[in-house]
This record gives sequence, structure tokens and C-alpha cells, in this order.
Amino acid sequence: MKHRHRARKTGLPPGTLVHIGDRMVEHANLSLIDYTPDSLVIKPLSSAAEAVAVKDTPSVSWINITGLHDTALLEEIGRGFEIHPLVLEDIGNTDQRPKLDLGERHLFIVAKMLKVIQGEVLTLDSEQVSFIVGPDYLLTFQEKEGDLFDPVRERIRQSQGRLRKTGPDYLAYALLDLMVDNYFVVLEALAEEIDAIEDQILGRPDAKTSQRIHHMKRTLLLMRKSTWPLREMITSLLRDESTLVKPGTHLFLRDLYDHTIHIFDTIETYRDMLSGLLEVQLSNINNRMSEVIKVLTIIATIFIPLTFVAGVYGMNFEYMPELAWAWGYPTVLLLMFGIGGGMLLWFRIKKWI
Amino acid sequence: MKHRHRARKTGLPPGTLVHIGDRMVEHANLSLIDYTPDSLVIKPLSSAAEAVAVKDTPSVSWINITGLHDTALLEEIGRGFEIHPLVLEDIGNTDQRPKLDLGERHLFIVAKMLKVIQGEVLTLDSEQVSFIVGPDYLLTFQEKEGDLFDPVRERIRQSQGRLRKTGPDYLAYALLDLMVDNYFVVLEALAEEIDAIEDQILGRPDAKTSQRIHHMKRTLLLMRKSTWPLREMITSLLRDESTLVKPGTHLFLRDLYDHTIHIFDTIETYRDMLSGLLEVQLSNINNRMSEVIKVLTIIATIFIPLTFVAGVYGMNFEYMPELAWAWGYPTVLLLMFGIGGGMLLWFRIKKWI
Amino acid sequence: MKHRHRARKTGLPPGTLVHIGDRMVEHANLSLIDYTPDSLVIKPLSSAAEAVAVKDTPSVSWINITGLHDTALLEEIGRGFEIHPLVLEDIGNTDQRPKLDLGERHLFIVAKMLKVIQGEVLTLDSEQVSFIVGPDYLLTFQEKEGDLFDPVRERIRQSQGRLRKTGPDYLAYALLDLMVDNYFVVLEALAEEIDAIEDQILGRPDAKTSQRIHHMKRTLLLMRKSTWPLREMITSLLRDESTLVKPGTHLFLRDLYDHTIHIFDTIETYRDMLSGLLEVQLSNINNRMSEVIKVLTIIATIFIPLTFVAGVYGMNFEYMPELAWAWGYPTVLLLMFGIGGGMLLWFRIKKWI
Amino acid sequence: MKHRHRARKTGLPPGTLVHIGDRMVEHANLSLIDYTPDSLVIKPLSSAAEAVAVKDTPSVSWINITGLHDTALLEEIGRGFEIHPLVLEDIGNTDQRPKLDLGERHLFIVAKMLKVIQGEVLTLDSEQVSFIVGPDYLLTFQEKEGDLFDPVRERIRQSQGRLRKTGPDYLAYALLDLMVDNYFVVLEALAEEIDAIEDQILGRPDAKTSQRIHHMKRTLLLMRKSTWPLREMITSLLRDESTLVKPGTHLFLRDLYDHTIHIFDTIETYRDMLSGLLEVQLSNINNRMSEVIKVLTIIATIFIPLTFVAGVYGMNFEYMPELAWAWGYPTVLLLMFGIGGGMLLWFRIKKWI
Amino acid sequence: MKHRHRARKTGLPPGTLVHIGDRMVEHANLSLIDYTPDSLVIKPLSSAAEAVAVKDTPSVSWINITGLHDTALLEEIGRGFEIHPLVLEDIGNTDQRPKLDLGERHLFIVAKMLKVIQGEVLTLDSEQVSFIVGPDYLLTFQEKEGDLFDPVRERIRQSQGRLRKTGPDYLAYALLDLMVDNYFVVLEALAEEIDAIEDQILGRPDAKTSQRIHHMKRTLLLMRKSTWPLREMITSLLRDESTLVKPGTHLFLRDLYDHTIHIFDTIETYRDMLSGLLEVQLSNINNRMSEVIKVLTIIATIFIPLTFVAGVYGMNFEYMPELAWAWGYPTVLLLMFGIGGGMLLWFRIKKWI
Repeated sequence: MKHRHRARKTGLPPGTLVHIGDRMVEHANLSLIDYTPDSLVIKPLSSAAEAVAVKDTPSVSWINITGLHDTALLEEIGRGFEIHPLVLEDIGNTDQRPKLDLGERHLFIVAKMLKVIQGEVLTLDSEQVSFIVGPDYLLTFQEKEGDLFDPVRERIRQSQGRLRKTGPDYLAYALLDLMVDNYFVVLEALAEEIDAIEDQILGRPDAKTSQRIHHMKRTLLLMRKSTWPLREMITSLLRDESTLVKPGTHLFLRDLYDHTIHIFDTIETYRDMLSGLLEVQLSNINNRMSEVIKVLTIIATIFIPLTFVAGVYGMNFEYMPELAWAWGYPTVLLLMFGIGGGMLLWFRIKKWI
Repeated sequence: MKHRHRARKTGLPPGTLVHIGDRMVEHANLSLIDYTPDSLVIKPLSSAAEAVAVKDTPSVSWINITGLHDTALLEEIGRGFEIHPLVLEDIGNTDQRPKLDLGERHLFIVAKMLKVIQGEVLTLDSEQVSFIVGPDYLLTFQEKEGDLFDPVRERIRQSQGRLRKTGPDYLAYALLDLMVDNYFVVLEALAEEIDAIEDQILGRPDAKTSQRIHHMKRTLLLMRKSTWPLREMITSLLRDESTLVKPGTHLFLRDLYDHTIHIFDTIETYRDMLSGLLEVQLSNINNRMSEVIKVLTIIATIFIPLTFVAGVYGMNFEYMPELAWAWGYPTVLLLMFGIGGGMLLWFRIKKWI
Repeated sequence: MKHRHRARKTGLPPGTLVHIGDRMVEHANLSLIDYTPDSLVIKPLSSAAEAVAVKDTPSVSWINITGLHDTALLEEIGRGFEIHPLVLEDIGNTDQRPKLDLGERHLFIVAKMLKVIQGEVLTLDSEQVSFIVGPDYLLTFQEKEGDLFDPVRERIRQSQGRLRKTGPDYLAYALLDLMVDNYFVVLEALAEEIDAIEDQILGRPDAKTSQRIHHMKRTLLLMRKSTWPLREMITSLLRDESTLVKPGTHLFLRDLYDHTIHIFDTIETYRDMLSGLLEVQLSNINNRMSEVIKVLTIIATIFIPLTFVAGVYGMNFEYMPELAWAWGYPTVLLLMFGIGGGMLLWFRIKKWI
Repeated sequence: MKHRHRARKTGLPPGTLVHIGDRMVEHANLSLIDYTPDSLVIKPLSSAAEAVAVKDTPSVSWINITGLHDTALLEEIGRGFEIHPLVLEDIGNTDQRPKLDLGERHLFIVAKMLKVIQGEVLTLDSEQVSFIVGPDYLLTFQEKEGDLFDPVRERIRQSQGRLRKTGPDYLAYALLDLMVDNYFVVLEALAEEIDAIEDQILGRPDAKTSQRIHHMKRTLLLMRKSTWPLREMITSLLRDESTLVKPGTHLFLRDLYDHTIHIFDTIETYRDMLSGLLEVQLSNINNRMSEVIKVLTIIATIFIPLTFVAGVYGMNFEYMPELAWAWGYPTVLLLMFGIGGGMLLWFRIKKWI
Repeated sequence: MKHRHRARKTGLPPGTLVHIGDRMVEHANLSLIDYTPDSLVIKPLSSAAEAVAVKDTPSVSWINITGLHDTALLEEIGRGFEIHPLVLEDIGNTDQRPKLDLGERHLFIVAKMLKVIQGEVLTLDSEQVSFIVGPDYLLTFQEKEGDLFDPVRERIRQSQGRLRKTGPDYLAYALLDLMVDNYFVVLEALAEEIDAIEDQILGRPDAKTSQRIHHMKRTLLLMRKSTWPLREMITSLLRDESTLVKPGTHLFLRDLYDHTIHIFDTIETYRDMLSGLLEVQLSNINNRMSEVIKVLTIIATIFIPLTFVAGVYGMNFEYMPELAWAWGYPTVLLLMFGIGGGMLLWFRIKKWI
């Protein structure tokens, strides 16, 4: 389990900005995409002050901050955009449950970006992305370089779709939608893994199989933790009557809501399937053990009495009349065949063989 | 598990029409059934334009589109019937949770048509059917040829029942009702499979039995995913105050609601039964293993000590006085009988035999 | 599992009357009990027309119809009493979930009459009873002869209790109350069966025990399906503001509601108990297997090494100096006793014996 | 399981008073405690008429009836205090779910008094206590002599606390509070039993342990059935707007509510613990079995091949050249040591020993 | 399980102050922190009277009482601060479910302070802390010396953050926040323990592992009991419209609410993980047992028939022609090799080796 070192925050006053999580980038960096239907500026920013400067321009300003360890930077941005200290604390703390805060000046959204890491076992990489959605600006905070947002950047650049014509609420939706769409990609990878586990169980399961199932279960637990709160989040957004989310965006949010429900349903279905697989595996192990024991029992039950008979006539008593009989040996052999055959017949009747 | 290739959609703007699913027919084709209480036209359509042309006629126009891979066609129809791009996207995406969208111009319904495929194991074939219910038209979108709707077509043709006298809302209900009625057919096939599994478990279960149970569980999970959302869907339809669903249809929808509840209850009951069967099977395996081990133990416990005694008198020491005794052999034989009989008595007391 | 042949209904228009279920009686038959506080008529009816004739008389008319396969009869009654085709369809379909329809002209109630069949295993017989409660008539529809309603008939005849002074709503309540009271009788039979299973498990369980538990679980599932919907049904009746259920009956319905809750609680408790029993049994099987294996291990572990020693001195090498020693035999015997005793001591220390 | 003979009531009209339960006392007896802040009368009553006589006195009259088999007495009291027949029926039926009826003239409360019976196994004795709370009287109905109410009687006698200054609602609360407080006593006994079971499992579990766990589970199921309905009951009392429960008592009821929640939580926690213990026990049994089998396998695997080798050289063929070799015997002994040592080494490598 | 001796309270009137719990400190002691934005007094108090004296001063007075066994002291404080006897009883009873009482004069909050005790096994120490939040005073009641509140004391002393500028509601929040923050510390310790258990299971599990899992499960049950009620508690606080909680504190309470949800989610996830681990362990035990049995079966199945053959030719019959054959010995050896090889081949084919 990823350790979160949240302990280091204990005892500090509420609203103290502490970075909780691993430092993923060398230097935090900022970039700006500023657009109206007719204009477009894309440039890196070198300081928080530059970011704050675009706050009140009428164009839509999307400022992306990568790297959360630079608390000084975060605090400067926080002051500039009038972000409540508790919100700023949540941005810096990457061990956050997805959540929504409906503020007066802006919305605050925390969500998780999931990526599949295909190693020996399938692992999920979870990165926290925070959104501050203001009336004409959007701040996004990421832990590390490399995100899923390039398609949106491209659509802005090419003035594709509704993006350039709408506000930061639709932009935030478009980014969230990308993240949620990516959950489907993750789910497909998981489906393949489940299929592989199923094949293994029906084929040649080994001691690793149940660990593989267990690992998948943990992955699904993690996914569920990331997905479940999205439901309430979007419901709250839809109920919200502030002017930050425009009515035109509601239809899209409802669509997003359907997607999260679908994802959640699928996760639950996968969990049920894995439980079922575990039961099949347990049943298989026991079945196979039962088979093995049956073989042992049949062989031992037939030959142990026979060996005893042989042992009797291997005794060295001086007065054992049978030993001197001419037909002694064949008789004993026949007796042995009789016992063995009788046993086999009995097993046959009991349907063991 | 059916792979859904939803991934190919990731990164596209929301509302982009992409066909997700397998291409099931060579060419998409359209057909029209246009009726009033007094008139009836049934004909294939050769283009989307023809379909759009009947949109505003006062007669009820049921346009059925089979084949979802032809996105150009879908888009033309979408434009003609003013279908929102997000809805169109949902129509093209066959990996959809059953859902209902209450639009202003029309209702959008997604449901699943299930068919039993009787192969070596019982499998379900799930086809997505989408409905656009307008004030005087109904569009249905199917993935492939061959549907369950022929009885309705027949009733329209023969002017049977209420169909010809009512609007597209009742027509959509009649089609949904057929699909839900078919769920009962599926449930009966499942009930037979469960009975067969039960017989197998009580008779001669083998390693395949638990896999068969597992397969049934997965099938029920799939059915549940298709049925559960129908509940909320119909509830929403009943609460909806738009004029698209006429009050006369409400009674029928309530009946449909009862059916979905009944189906859902039955699915849950089947799931409980399967869990119970798995427990019985596990218990049976263990019981049988216990029996086998008991036989092994009884035989081994009786004969291993006897063989030891025989082994002792098979030793070749020069000075073994017992060997020379005239009564040595009979004495040892008696001793052996004594040990064996004692063991049997002890097993009898312990109620093993 | 009882097969329900519902499939035969698929494709027919909604509201088509088809009998789903087994034909239980040769001819459908009708009987009438017609009463006011002062008058009483009890007679069999020979046709649906006779039944319809009493519809509008001011006296309370209870018409009981036994046998649902005669669809012509049902349809005639349906027309006479203005029963909606969907309701009529539900009456004919004996695979119905208990339900309540609040109509304007009458209430429609479906409930299940359960009877214990004491055979080799305890089985439940479930018969569907439908009620049409009008302003001054009550129709009851049963699948077969023989019901639980005789006490009510007797009370009507003897003018006992409130029955003669109240309307068909109270009469329907009295019949439902009888059916629910009978659930307690069924529960007592089940309690005895559970006790018997428990005794068997604590005494001498065999392979049949888990099947018996499984059978009980299925029976409880069936009972739950019959009971659970009664809750909502009575709640709806209590909330209903039509004049069909008089306020005086509400108190009695509330009492009935308490009974159904109690029954439902008891069913759930029984289910929990059975799950517990299954766990005890599984644990017992494993425990017993463990005991058996311990005996095998002790005997084998002691005697197999001893037999080996005997085998060594049973070898026929010419140069085995021990064989010629005068004390060879006693020494080896002592060695054997030592090994055996040591083993026993070791088992003692490990607390195996 | 306690059988409840409820069946004997089936078929009787609703509201028929029948005693369901065991007759616990020879004669029903009545006692009266009648008090105002300034006066106090404590006396046994010899007839129902005496009880009815105090009904309308302004003092608080607590009439306790012990023994429910005397239906004539109950009916007389029922008439005198205007108790509805359905309520009277519930008083006589000791197989009742805890419940609350908000009548106009009085409240009706059914609750369960639990006592621990420390025998070989811990058992619960459950006695039903019914309350009729009127404006200035309280009737309590018990099944048998000996209750938990003496502390309240003492407080009334000594004019301690609020009791003498408040009405029958507070008196009923005080009695319920005693009963609920006693649930904590029961829970402590159960906690000790769970600890004992845990010690046994970690120490020397035997076949009885899982039965003990099962018995505890049943006891907890019974307790849950007695406690769960109390929640709703008190919630209803708090929401009730009649004047029978004075506002001053609400605070106390809320406290009682907290207690029932706490008890319910604790019961659920105990149930979870017992499930956990069962799992630990199952795991322990399997682990121990695994150990036993390992010992058997090691011994058998080492000595069975050695015995075979000895057997080979125990054969009596005339031409077995090894037998004549001078170094034959030591060589074979060495070979045996080699095989045995190799086996041990292999087990070592496999970490079996 | 910690025994709570709650029984000693049974029979006492509601609102009787009895200390339930262990006496943790020699003498109860009181301390005062009294502050306004500009002034600060920190001093120990020697009597309840001193505490009561600061009640009505306009400054914020935080009185901390450690040690709950001194009922006289508690009662004096109760009288001085007009605390309801039921509330006082709850303070003295350390076996309390976390709860909130919204009084008119003050709020009453009970919460649990959890500490990890790192011994052989990870154990939780749970201490009950009660809060009385008045308009300008805060009383905290603890069971023993040593709390988590020093950071808050330090912040008051250094006039850091909002503490000095806000009322007792924010102070209570700050203390609760510390307690909840500490739950994260506990969760991290639990996460490490789960990781350790997982490593053990995947590495070398032994009989202790399932007990360790069981112990963790109990710990999580305890944590859940402490956390779950916090949710409702904070929700009630947020809904409360009294003036005791100022609007400015609401934002912080909402943050606290998010934390409790996060903690609760994590506990549930851990519980799911532990259940999964138990399953993996059970599956591993069975798998390993299956391996051991397979080795036994292979060895026994090969050598027991061979030993029988050797036994046959070890018999001492006078007329055994094979014994005299020159090629008898090699033939038998070849036969033995053949049988052994055949067995090995068969195992190979069955994929056992």
C-alpha cells in the first residue's frame, strides 16, 4: 500500500498548507492557455504573479500547475485567486477523497487520474488533479508531468467543438470527461486481466492465482474509492444554483453522471466476478485434492493388505505347514488376486473408479 | 468477457459519434411503418432523407434503423430529427447502461434485448436497442438483423389491439414490453439450467460443476445490469410531466414496472440459489474427501501394524526363540487377528464404520 | 423449481388473457355468499352472468371463482365487473408477484396462499389468490379447490364478529389475515425443520444434511418472495385515500402490517440461522476429517519406521554380523520399542493424543 | 428453538383474545401502586374491577398484571380500560415483535425483558412485557413472577428522583429504561462468552467450539430481534404529538434512544466478531490438518522407499549376486542413509521442516 | 475485550452520576486556559468553584477536567454550569457511543481519542473525551493524563491562527480536528500492519497469521464504532441553527466532515482488504496441503506396489519356481522399474509432476 505520510500534518492548525505526497517533479511549473472564440495565447508562465495577472481578464484563462511540493508558489496563487486556506490545504494534500466544494468565488473539485501500469501484475497509478473553476479562469493542479489533457489542448488550438465558445465550466467538464473516459480504458485492462485469471483458473491454477485475484480486488477497491464520490460530486454540481456552472453545461454533466454510474456498476460487477472466481478456485483446489487422495487411497487400500499377506508368508517360523505345500504359492497368489480384485470391484461399486 | 473497445473513443470531444461495438450487418438499413387508425404504409427506406421526410407527418411513423456502424447515416438522421450529439453518441455506443433521457423534443431510451444461446453452456446474447420517442414518430436503432418485434408489426398490420389507435409512446411501450417479456423466457432457460446444475450436484458433481455455477453467476450479473436500470427508467417516465407520454399509457407502464420488479426479484433469488448450490457442492466435496480418507485410514490402521508384526518374524536373526516354537506361527496369527479385530471394534465404537 | 411456462405469453398484446400455470381443477366453479347484517344467501353460481347480476345489489357479495384455465369465463366476469384487461391478465397469470393495484372502480390484490406439504422433505405449496375489492362486492380467484377461508365463511354464517356489519374491504382483510396467519403455521413447521437439522448436525450429519439445509433455504427464499411485497402493499392500502377501504378497516390493516413485518423478520432470522448451521456443518466435517487424518498419521508414523527396521533385518545378505549376535534380536526389539515410545511421547508433547 | 404455538390462533376472528405462550404462573395476580407527589398506596388487587376503579382517579395508578393465561381477567380489564380487542390480542400473544401503537386514549407498548441464564451454555430468557400508558394510569402485563422493576418500586416508595412528581409516561419510560439497562448486563455476559470462545479458539479448540459460536450467534439474533424495533418505537414516540407523552419526558426518551442505538451497534459488532472467530477457527482447523498431513508425508516419504529397498534384499532368489558380496550389507545401509538424508534435505529446501 | 462494568449502573434512576470505566488518575485535576484576542491566562484550578467562577466572564474559558472518578467534583461542575443530569451521567460513563446533544445552554459532544499501542500486536487505546460547548466557555472531560491537545495549547499561547480571535465553538472544532487528524495516524499504523500481514501471507504464513488478521479486524471494528457516529454528529451540528456554532465555523466543520468520510471509507476498504487476505490465506493453506498430499501420494503410489512385489518374492514357500530361475532376480528388478516408470509416466500425463 502506498503510504501517505499524512501524519506529518497532525497538530498543525487547520488550513496550514503542507505537501502530502511524493515529490514528483524537480520544479513546479505553470502554463497558461488563454482564449476567447477569436484569440488564443499558449505560453508557459514563470511566476505565480503572472498567473494572478490574467485572473480578471475577460478571456478564459486555463492555468495548469504541475508539482505541488512548492508550497510558497501555491500560497502565492492562493492569495492571488483568493483561495480559502482549507482549500489550499486540500490541493497540497494528495491523499484526498474526490470532492466538490461550492464556494462563492469559485468551485473546487478534486478528482483522481488513473493510469494502468502494465508490469508483472497490473497496477494502477493514481494522480490527484484539483480544479479551481472561477467565472473566467480555471486552475488545474497536478502532481507530475504527463497528463491526459492533450486532446483538449488540441481541440482548443484547432478551435474544435464547443470549447472555444464556452466558459471555464465547460473546459473543466471536458477535462473531467477525459479523466472519466480514461476510467473506461482502465476498466478494459481490468477486464482483460480478469479474463486471464479466469483462463488460468480453468486451466492450470497455481498458488499465485489467488494472489492475483487478491491484487485485482485491491485495484478495484482503489478504483471504487476514486469513482464513488464522483457521483455525489456531479449530483451536487447539477443541483448547484450558482452562476459558475452555466445551464448549457448541465446536459454534459448529466452525461458524465451516466458514465460514472456505468463505471461504478462495472466495478461492482467485476468485484462480484472476482469473488466468484475465488470460489471456483477454492472449489477446484479441493476437488483436485480429493482426486489425489482418492488415488492414494485406492493404491494403498489394495496393496497394503496384499503386502501383509506376503509378509505373513515371509515369516521364518519353523512350523508353517503352508510353506511346504506344493500348491501353497499358487494358492496365496490366487488369494492375493482375489483380494485385489475384490477391492477393485468395491471401488467400482462405490463409483470411485 | 466481451471486449468493448470503448478505448478508441478516449480523447474525442464529447458528442463525437463513434461506433463502439462489433459491426453486425453489411449495410445499415432503414424501414418505415407509418400508420393512422385508417391507413398503413410499410416500406423500406433507402436514405436518411426519406426518413426525415416523414418526421412531421401527422401519422405515427416508426422508423427502424439496423446497423450502427454507418455514422454518416446516423448523423444525417440526427440532424434531421434534431437529436442532441450526446444522445447520438450514446446510440452509436453499444456499451451503454440502459437509460432514459427526458428531452424536450423527444424521449431517448436505451434498453438491452437479451437472447439465450443454447450451446455447450447457456450464454446470453445482448443487443442494444435505442428508442427516440417523438410526438408522432418513433425511431428504433438496433445492432443487427432479427429482432423480437415481429408480433408488434403483425398487430399493427392486422390493426389488432390498441396499437393503431395510439401514439408512438404506446408503440415504444409495446416494444419495450416485448423485450421485457422476453426476459421471462430467458429466466425460464436459466431456471432450467439451475435445476440441471442442482441435479448434477446432488448426483455426480465433477470439476466442471463449479465452473458451470460460475458461468451462471456471470450470466445473472449481466442480466441484472440490463434489468436494474429499467426500474428507475420507468419510474422516471411515470413521473415525467411532458406530453410525450400520454396518461393512457401510464397504466401500461405501471404494469411494465411490475414486470421489471418481478424479473429483478427472480434474478436475486437465482443468485441466492446459486450461492447456496456452491455451498452444497463445497460441502459435498469435503464430505466425499472425508469418506475417502476414512477408508484409507481404516485399511492402513489395521494392516500397517500387522505387517510390522509379520516383518518382525521375517527377520533373519539366528537366535529368535519364537521361531522354533511349535505354536509360534498359530500364536502370531491369533495375535494378528486380535489386533485387527481390536482395531475394527475401536472404529465401530468411534462410529467410523 | 416449478416451471411457469410464462414463455407462451410472449409476443401477445399487453392485456391478452392467457392462463399461465397448471390446470388444477376440471371445471372452473363459482360460488356466492351474499349478506347484509340481516340477510344471508349462500349458493353456487352456474354462470358468469349470475355473478355479474349481483354486482350492483346493495348487499355485500362475495363471489369466489376456483379454476383459472377457463379464460372465457374470466373474460365474461372481467367485462361484467369492468376489470381492466391488464388486471385480468394478471389474474390468469399465476406466476405473479404479490401486488396491489389501486383502481378507481375497485382494488386489485394478488397474494400467495402457502401450505406445508410434509413429505420426505418439507415442501411449500404456493397458490395464487387474487382479490377484486369493489364498493359492495368482493371477487376472489383461486387456482384450485380447498382453501383456508372456511373459518371466515363460518363466521359469516354465524354472524360472528364484525364481518356481517362491515363491507367487502373488511371481508378482504379477514381473508388476507387468514392467509397471513397461516404463514405463522408455515413458519412453525419450518422452525421444527430447522431444529431437526440442527439436531442432525450436532448428532450424526451425513451428506444429505447440506442438501436439507439447501432445500430449506430455497423454501425460505420462496416465502420471502411471497411476503416481502405484502409490506409495500399494505402500506399503499393505508396511504390510499379512495373510499374503497373504510377508515374502520385501517386499524386492522395496521395490525396485518405488524404481522407481515414479524413474518419477514422471522424469515430473515431463519436464513441467518441456516447460514450459521451450514458453517457449523462445514466446520464439523473439517474437524472430523482432521481427527481421522490424525489417527492415520499416528499409526503410520509409528509403524512405518518400525517395519523398515524389521525389513532391514529381513534382508538376506550373507555378511550381516548383527544377525549372528546372541543379543541381536532383543536389542532390535528394544530399539523398536524405543522408537515407538519416542514417537508416542512426541505426539503427546504436540498434544495430538 | 422455543415453539410458540401460534398456530392455535389461526382461523379465529381478528381481535380474539387467545393466550399464546407457556403458562408461567398458577394464578394471574394484580398489584397496584398509586401515587401523587404527596400520597402513596401500594396494595395487591383481588379483581379486575378493583383495577378499573382506580382508572379515573387523578393520582398516577400503576397496575401490574402477572400471568397472561387468564383471558377472562384480561378481557375484563380490556373492557374497563377501553382497550381495543386487537391490542388485547397482542397482549395475550407473547410471540410479539416489540411495537408501539399510538392510540387516542392510551399508548400501547410491547417490549422484551431479557435475562441471562448461565447454564452449560449461555442462554437468554425472553419475557414479553406490555405497557398501556394512559393519561393517569399505567398498566403493565408480564408473563411471570420476578421482574427487574424493583428499583423503580423502591424509588417510588422513597420518593426518590422525578418519579413521584411526573406522570405515567415517565413511569413507563423508567421501566423501559430499566429493561434497556439490563440489555447492557446481558451484553456484558455475552462479551465474556465471546472472550471465552476466543480463548478457546486460540488455545485448544474442539468440535464443540463451532457449536458454541453458533449458539452465540443465535442468541445475538434473538437479541437483535428484541432491540431493533425499539429504535423505530422510540422515534415514533418522540414524533408523536399526543399529550400522553409530556415534553419533559422527551429528553429522557432521546437518552433511551441513544442507548438502544448503542446496544444495536454492539450487537452488530459482536456478530462481526463471531463471524471473524469462525473464520479463524476454520483456518486453524485447516492449518492443523495441514501440519498433521505434513508429518505423515515426511515419515512415509522417507521410510516407504527404504522399506522397499530392504524388501528387495529380503527376496529369496537364488541368484542375487549382491547378497554374497562382503560389502553388500554396508553398501545397502549407506544407500539407505543416502536416500533418507536426501529426502530430508529436499524437505529442508522445500521449507517443510 | 475491555469489560465495561456498566452493569453496576443498572437499577439506578436515570441521570444518576456513576463513573463507569477504570480509574486512570490518582486525583482528578482541573486546568484553565482563559483568553481573549488580547489577554491570556493559563493556570491550574484547585476546585470546581474556581471553574464555575469563570463561567460568565466574557473571555473564552477552556476548562479541562482530567479524571472522571471524582463524581462529587463532576456534580459540582454540573450544578455550576447547569448541565443536565443525563448529560452528566454520559460524561461519567466512558462506555459511550460518540454523540451530540444540542442543548439550549450548551452543546454536548462525546468523541473518542484513539492511540496506537505498538506491542507484540498492534492495539488501540481508546479514551473518551467529552465537550461542553457554551457561549463563552468550553469544558473538556478526559479519562487520563496525556492528550493530543498540546498543539492547540501552543497555538493559543502563541496567538497563532484563528484560535484567539474566535469563540469556544472554533476551539472545540480545533480539538476535534486534532482527534480526527490523529485517526489518520492510526490508519497509517494499520496500513503498515496490513502490509506486514500481506507480506507474511505471501511469504511464510503460520497459524498466527489468521489470528493477526482477526485482531486487525477487531481493531477496525472498534475504529468504525468510534468514527461512524461522527458523521451524523457533524451533520447535525451543521444543520443546527442555534447561535452556539457561529457561521464562520461551518466551513471548518464541513472540512472535518470530509475527513470523517475519508476515514470511514478507508476503514471499510481495510476491512475489505482483510477479508480478501483471509481468503488468500485459506486458499494458500489448502493449496499447500494439496501439494503435500500430492508428494505423499506419488511416493506411496510408486513404492507400495513395488514393496508388495518384493514381499511376494520374500515369501518362504518351498515351491516357488521363479526363485530358482537364473534370470528371476533381474526380471523382477526390471518389472519393478517398469511399474515405477509407468507410474511416473502416468503422473506426468496427469500433470501431477
